[in-house]
Amino acid sequence: MSNAIRANRILDAAVTLIAHYGYDKTTVSDIAREASVSKGAIYLHWQSKEQLFNALLVREVQQLLDDTMSRVEDDLQGGTIDRMYYHGLLALAAHPLMRALYTSDSRILGDYVRHQGPGRYTQRFLFGQIFVQRMQTARLIRDDLDATMTSYLFSIISYGLMQIETFITSEQAPALEEVASALADLVRHGFATENRDSEAGKQALRYLINEVKQTYISQRERKQDADD
Amino acid sequence: MSNAIRANRILDAAVTLIAHYGYDKTTVSDIAREASVSKGAIYLHWQSKEQLFNALLVREVQQLLDDTMSRVEDDLQGGTIDRMYYHGLLALAAHPLMRALYTSDSRILGDYVRHQGPGRYTQRFLFGQIFVQRMQTARLIRDDLDATMTSYLFSIISYGLMQIETFITSEQAPALEEVASALADLVRHGFATENRDSEAGKQALRYLINEVKQTYISQRERKQDADD
Repeated sequence: MSNAIRANRILDAAVTLIAHYGYDKTTVSDIAREASVSKGAIYLHWQSKEQLFNALLVREVQQLLDDTMSRVEDDLQGGTIDRMYYHGLLALAAHPLMRALYTSDSRILGDYVRHQGPGRYTQRFLFGQIFVQRMQTARLIRDDLDATMTSYLFSIISYGLMQIETFITSEQAPALEEVASALADLVRHGFATENRDSEAGKQALRYLINEVKQTYISQRERKQDADD
Repeated sequence: MSNAIRANRILDAAVTLIAHYGYDKTTVSDIAREASVSKGAIYLHWQSKEQLFNALLVREVQQLLDDTMSRVEDDLQGGTIDRMYYHGLLALAAHPLMRALYTSDSRILGDYVRHQGPGRYTQRFLFGQIFVQRMQTARLIRDDLDATMTSYLFSIISYGLMQIETFITSEQAPALEEVASALADLVRHGFATENRDSEAGKQALRYLINEVKQTYISQRERKQDADD
């Protein structure tokens, strides 16, 4: 087994366990057992559970962004704000660790999230504003609305959707795809323009995703260096 | 001091303390001190902290409903779905205990909320659906949308708004009134019809509020009897 394959198998095991039992209750031994490797093999890759988790977050963020982008690319109308919102919500829902990170689910993230204040959302919020502005420039989002407010409303809806299942039982709730579709309609009615130039929207999203990847990954690498 | 005046003063003290320190950390002695009455005086009204809290919830729910209704009555366009949503959000934000109940804030509600599952939202959700249907019958909400889904989306937006301040610092967030106003615009674009017959909407809201009051208060009274 190559190093890269083994590393990925370990991270697969870690995401399964952490999404199910939470960060605090998952040990390096648990991960080794789930991945069918020795504990020593894990320490060949990372010096600690924290470092492993750091690598896991980098991988999961990349996967979420790539998953969102490929859903958008595969959809002819994918570059419109309502279809992007639809695909983004479904991609987020499919990544339990990212979803936990998005909603600060301390049951899953444990100590990792408890030591951070609301300020950690600053960057995500700024990226959202810049993206709305670019979509306004491309005339794909109404430009009579304030970009900060528009981005804030998008966040409210996304948080609400990710959290609502803790309030309303799944038997009562409509299926996620239908909800995402109804929210996309709402976004279209509220924010979209008549312009449906999907390719311009896709280009804006590619640009955003590259920026987020570069910023996030270089931050994580700096953190990793600092931890070494 | 009459009994009723004293009871209200005690409940005022309780809501202040519980909203600040939470249910678990607030004792009957704390409430007595804050209300400037003896502990014995409190036990003249309620046999336990639980019973006092029960009475407090009844009063707060009534106040929230009355506050929402009076904001709607005072607004010429108050019976439209977007203005109702606006007034409802501002009323909710002004009642910290109701807001905690709405978002299951276990920091404030403590043991009270931890012992209840998501099923407790069933009733609220059903009231929402019935209300949407009545507003559709009055042609104030688009009737090409499913009432259950529409009510679900309203819940998503409300939860998202009440929770977002735990993620985004208040310096970054726009003022609540502006956010409520932008959300009302979104609701208008997404759900309202051309019909702006405010009086019919006000009538539907009066009807709903009476039903909620009767149901909620009779449940609480039954709970009180069962506790006795």
